[in-house]
Amino acid sequence: MSTEAGRHGAGERRRLRDLGITVGTLPTGPLNAITDVTGVRVGHTTIVHGEGPLKVGQGPVRTGVTAIHPHEGSTFSARVPAAIAVLNGAGEITGRSQVDETGLLDTPILLTNTFSVGAVHQACVEWLSEREPGIGTEDFVVPVVAETFDGVLNDAAGQHVRREHVVAALNDATGGAVAEGNVGGGTGMVLFGFKGGIGTSSRRVAIGDNRYTVGVLVQGNFGIAEDLLVEGVPVGQIVEGEMPPLPRRRHRTPGGDGSVIVVIATDAPLADRQLGRLCRRGMLGLGRTGATARNFSGDLLLAFSNTPQNRLPRQISDPLLTSIRLADERIDDLFQATIEATAEAILNALTAAETMTGRDGITVPALPLDRLVDVMRDYGRIQA
Amino acid sequence: MSTEAGRHGAGERRRLRDLGITVGTLPTGPLNAITDVTGVRVGHTTIVHGEGPLKVGQGPVRTGVTAIHPHEGSTFSARVPAAIAVLNGAGEITGRSQVDETGLLDTPILLTNTFSVGAVHQACVEWLSEREPGIGTEDFVVPVVAETFDGVLNDAAGQHVRREHVVAALNDATGGAVAEGNVGGGTGMVLFGFKGGIGTSSRRVAIGDNRYTVGVLVQGNFGIAEDLLVEGVPVGQIVEGEMPPLPRRRHRTPGGDGSVIVVIATDAPLADRQLGRLCRRGMLGLGRTGATARNFSGDLLLAFSNTPQNRLPRQISDPLLTSIRLADERIDDLFQATIEATAEAILNALTAAETMTGRDGITVPALPLDRLVDVMRDYGRIQA
Amino acid sequence: MSTEAGRHGAGERRRLRDLGITVGTLPTGPLNAITDVTGVRVGHTTIVHGEGPLKVGQGPVRTGVTAIHPHEGSTFSARVPAAIAVLNGAGEITGRSQVDETGLLDTPILLTNTFSVGAVHQACVEWLSEREPGIGTEDFVVPVVAETFDGVLNDAAGQHVRREHVVAALNDATGGAVAEGNVGGGTGMVLFGFKGGIGTSSRRVAIGDNRYTVGVLVQGNFGIAEDLLVEGVPVGQIVEGEMPPLPRRRHRTPGGDGSVIVVIATDAPLADRQLGRLCRRGMLGLGRTGATARNFSGDLLLAFSNTPQNRLPRQISDPLLTSIRLADERIDDLFQATIEATAEAILNALTAAETMTGRDGITVPALPLDRLVDVMRDYGRIQA
Amino acid sequence: MSTEAGRHGAGERRRLRDLGITVGTLPTGPLNAITDVTGVRVGHTTIVHGEGPLKVGQGPVRTGVTAIHPHEGSTFSARVPAAIAVLNGAGEITGRSQVDETGLLDTPILLTNTFSVGAVHQACVEWLSEREPGIGTEDFVVPVVAETFDGVLNDAAGQHVRREHVVAALNDATGGAVAEGNVGGGTGMVLFGFKGGIGTSSRRVAIGDNRYTVGVLVQGNFGIAEDLLVEGVPVGQIVEGEMPPLPRRRHRTPGGDGSVIVVIATDAPLADRQLGRLCRRGMLGLGRTGATARNFSGDLLLAFSNTPQNRLPRQISDPLLTSIRLADERIDDLFQATIEATAEAILNALTAAETMTGRDGITVPALPLDRLVDVMRDYGRIQA
Repeated sequence: MSTEAGRHGAGERRRLRDLGITVGTLPTGPLNAITDVTGVRVGHTTIVHGEGPLKVGQGPVRTGVTAIHPHEGSTFSARVPAAIAVLNGAGEITGRSQVDETGLLDTPILLTNTFSVGAVHQACVEWLSEREPGIGTEDFVVPVVAETFDGVLNDAAGQHVRREHVVAALNDATGGAVAEGNVGGGTGMVLFGFKGGIGTSSRRVAIGDNRYTVGVLVQGNFGIAEDLLVEGVPVGQIVEGEMPPLPRRRHRTPGGDGSVIVVIATDAPLADRQLGRLCRRGMLGLGRTGATARNFSGDLLLAFSNTPQNRLPRQISDPLLTSIRLADERIDDLFQATIEATAEAILNALTAAETMTGRDGITVPALPLDRLVDVMRDYGRIQA
Repeated sequence: MSTEAGRHGAGERRRLRDLGITVGTLPTGPLNAITDVTGVRVGHTTIVHGEGPLKVGQGPVRTGVTAIHPHEGSTFSARVPAAIAVLNGAGEITGRSQVDETGLLDTPILLTNTFSVGAVHQACVEWLSEREPGIGTEDFVVPVVAETFDGVLNDAAGQHVRREHVVAALNDATGGAVAEGNVGGGTGMVLFGFKGGIGTSSRRVAIGDNRYTVGVLVQGNFGIAEDLLVEGVPVGQIVEGEMPPLPRRRHRTPGGDGSVIVVIATDAPLADRQLGRLCRRGMLGLGRTGATARNFSGDLLLAFSNTPQNRLPRQISDPLLTSIRLADERIDDLFQATIEATAEAILNALTAAETMTGRDGITVPALPLDRLVDVMRDYGRIQA
Repeated sequence: MSTEAGRHGAGERRRLRDLGITVGTLPTGPLNAITDVTGVRVGHTTIVHGEGPLKVGQGPVRTGVTAIHPHEGSTFSARVPAAIAVLNGAGEITGRSQVDETGLLDTPILLTNTFSVGAVHQACVEWLSEREPGIGTEDFVVPVVAETFDGVLNDAAGQHVRREHVVAALNDATGGAVAEGNVGGGTGMVLFGFKGGIGTSSRRVAIGDNRYTVGVLVQGNFGIAEDLLVEGVPVGQIVEGEMPPLPRRRHRTPGGDGSVIVVIATDAPLADRQLGRLCRRGMLGLGRTGATARNFSGDLLLAFSNTPQNRLPRQISDPLLTSIRLADERIDDLFQATIEATAEAILNALTAAETMTGRDGITVPALPLDRLVDVMRDYGRIQA
Repeated sequence: MSTEAGRHGAGERRRLRDLGITVGTLPTGPLNAITDVTGVRVGHTTIVHGEGPLKVGQGPVRTGVTAIHPHEGSTFSARVPAAIAVLNGAGEITGRSQVDETGLLDTPILLTNTFSVGAVHQACVEWLSEREPGIGTEDFVVPVVAETFDGVLNDAAGQHVRREHVVAALNDATGGAVAEGNVGGGTGMVLFGFKGGIGTSSRRVAIGDNRYTVGVLVQGNFGIAEDLLVEGVPVGQIVEGEMPPLPRRRHRTPGGDGSVIVVIATDAPLADRQLGRLCRRGMLGLGRTGATARNFSGDLLLAFSNTPQNRLPRQISDPLLTSIRLADERIDDLFQATIEATAEAILNALTAAETMTGRDGITVPALPLDRLVDVMRDYGRIQA
């Protein structure tokens, strides 16, 4: 099978911090990844095969699916507080109405390409039905599937994500380091005109006597090169001028644009309302990378808290539930953490992703890391 | 093939007005259906086969899919103003974020069961990709698929809606009278404890020199018998006491509940913001039938206006668009029309749907029309 | 001083239940009032003086202010979970953005006329500043003041609500029976073409081992006679035809319309998200009385829970807060309670309010109770 | 009278661009101010008197009010499309529910301190009632008054903004250059720990054959020094370390925070929905300056379009309205313009505001411009 599951072979690609570039001031978790939030598990299925001219249904295929489990167990059986917010709505995240209403997430989160939402939804229902009691008779489920559009490189209309890809991502998801760049749902994505995809980052904060982690994973697929800012430095404008013309998305207009999905995880005990607040800080984090949320961009954010005490069983025995939450009066550091981790996750997607050639021979170049470092040094953002 | 497409064999079932019961004061259109809004087309694929014990994947099957085209042409190529609103969010309507952001609907509307959202989404993308230029490379689409849960009668986990069912509903959709009750997406639905499903109604109003139509189609699957009100008369309480115990949904609690999708169409020139206002009046219409929007109910409303002058082509040549709208100061009659048509559509679903036996031999009885008439006469709501 | 504080001299006016008319099926609390929720306190200042032609700034004056304290203490020092929702936004409730963000109410709720929002806001800040530590230096407050428009009867532009009226309503607020009709903020209001104003009602429910109360207070000022439904019976249409023409509001159009403020109190432990759900059921309760939420109507709802364990002190010592909430899976009876109490509160405003003559000799008649009873008996809704 | 109306005596203070610092890439309008949008008028009343210890009701007073008229005429009589959005809701903007519902602004916009919302609201109603026909009888109005909290320097609880101050700001508002810094509603505000207040900026874009202007005015009162970014450069962290300790707000916690009001004006023909999109880009502009939208921050944004053809008269004769709008497909440059102008307006508030000493001798220092320039030069952001 022409599917590569698992880790991205990064070659010479690096993470942003490994280049000496730091976003913000808060410390990261040990992995600088969403999986620094204990229990969070990530799985990627990467689907890459074929070359040459687009033949719809045959390829070339440059796509995949990423699964995120909010904790080490079944989210269906141990639901977690969650919220969704929309910066620009030209995209899809299924399950949004239910998350809004219940303040809960009760399925894994799946990220894929725009046209595979249906197949992934279907596979997720099937996967859950096989594992959880009562689904289909006494109980139902509304999966959360989000997307960005990979039609620049991928045979998107071919709908190449199939049941087994989804099942693999769900089953193989683990903690530990997270592959970034051209993997999973991010395989065929384009970010600020360069190759993008999956990125992740985390921050740790101490509030009162407790330490909490915020981890972010993005599927980044938006923007044009002149928008890109790295800590305010117009890296995209500078580097773009030195390269052959970047391929442009053309969604009905020149400058047409992609999307981004931001998944924010925390172990801090936050209520659904507070998680909505984190989502809105994720928007500010996007803004720090130069995102302008263009017209055709579906910029969607989901936040969850997996604090064990606040997980809600499927079957309620006592009608009175007890939960804990961090006082809003002490939440500011989590806001800062979310902003920083979101911005760094976007930049990690850029520095991790490798140059890719897809349908019709279109090539999207990786952001040249040597030039990134040079420019940042010129602007005093890397110590000589 | 065990699929029945097309009209419902109504037998002795009737529409509410044919029983002498009138909702509200405004006149209906000639068909008293959503298709009184010129250009609106409706197609149902009804999938019924098998009997006896539930075998997941085999049946019994009591489900289907309903397609609504907002006008006589391609909604992809001639987009229409639209809005979505949520009374209670325990359900799914895909495409909501995009409709919110753009104020436009650019796909047909598809109604099905909860677990077939994925299959229907996938089929809709495929159907559109085959017909519309540029999808998958230059352009993308986010379909609108809404659902209610038919697991009381149907092998829901079996995911029996397939590509061909969706294509048939989309292709066969026509104007004219609309089949109601156990058809299309409404096939296996339960409404106030009685058999429910698809219902429709319309109202006509004159504003200034123009006449406008509001048409509503519902997929009704909510409530318990004691909630049912017909023009305020507690028909459900009275009739339930005379019948064998009604089967109850059991979504984790006794009294667990279903959902309703309300599609509101109008030819009045309304902007997206105003269509959101119509959706909120649809909620009041639901309320008039006794709906309480129970915890497990996904009560989702979508409104669109198909005024020809306001349709938006896919490719914009002039960046300046001109549109017309009815002044808010003159909109009240459309509010009243929406309330009345929504309430009557719900009741038409009840009076049209026939008794159905589904999985595990569970039977959901039709609302007995003779008793409905008797009770309404007792309460002075039908002239002797 | 020409101000009448305190109870409404009801004369021959009655409450709906005293006429033999019952809304819904759940039992009321002992007072059938918002004050059945332990700790809730209500105070009215009613300002009535002058007759004859309108002289702006002089009168005639037919207005007032109503204060609601969510519990027996200071809401500033012991904040309560709360939510606000909007059915139609042609009106004002200050503090909405803060309640949305924090999920908390930290001031009393004040109801008045449209043009006195400023004066009441100012007086509330002053009243709080005198009582609570740190306001103005270390701390700030955003009061909640809601309004409906009484310009049919009152010299609205004259802004006759003054500091002392607000202070009196805040200071004199008590538990116990609540005056209804032409009192407080409701003094000059018009409801379904008849005299309206303040109304209240409550419901009791048992969930698990606990009993909870939902109490509603409305300031009702909307609708035209032909919209009025009492348990579905078109009382307004029937009675209007027997009376001299009712005065119509004329907000730029014939049929121009008023507003309604709905305050929902409960002692059930509900989180802010759940209180938003109650607000949306309040909308359904309005719908049951025939409300159509006309264009010029500001139909605003606020719900709070005063469960002692969930009150939040102003100064947080431990950053971790513990709260309890009723499981959503068991919330349905509170939805039903909210719907019923909202509808009955509206009708109580109608049956309590007395005929009033205001500015320019305009008279708004009370709903004739004898006719209400006759009509309801004709429709089988009162036992002979 | 101890009130200073009119221009700010800027002394050695400068605008950001005059220091050689440029935000973004789009050109400004001729004034680089909100008044570059033709017809927009701004008026400030600045109220400064008293020194020494706080005596509530006496002073010291460091406050004011700013009025913005959306066009050269009466907004009441010629309403304009508008939208409001909330990044963090710990603040007030009255009229929000009505703007949401109608998509229109029909009053001037008034900016003041938190506790003067009531007085300003009252004065605005009075000012409108004297000028516009029918208010109080046939018609009503819901003013838009927004606030930030100036209690660090001002006797906030003293409520020193009076009717005459509001009337002066409304009546004296003009086009032309806009005073910035310690003026109007911004008089006593604190921004990133330094003295803040009013700032403004504009951008011009060409779309199709037309040129459009976006102008932004902010009342900036948020953040701590270490958050401040100027084009990504951590100016606040660097400069703060060189200064005596900055006074901190103490809203119940150390690090307690202020607020910001962002008013976005454009002459581009945008519908209310599109103006909401501009508000969300204003959030991204705030984010570029380092805003994290802290817990106690009321970060509220309002956008309006004053395109003459889309102004809506108070009295509608024809129920059909025609409007023009820019296609969403061509809106991206307006997004960019909004982001840049919002960020620059914030920074202009900082560079314009002078050191101020207020109640209890508390001094808030101006951002030292020489150090700003040095730091920006060190980071390669000013050409040597």
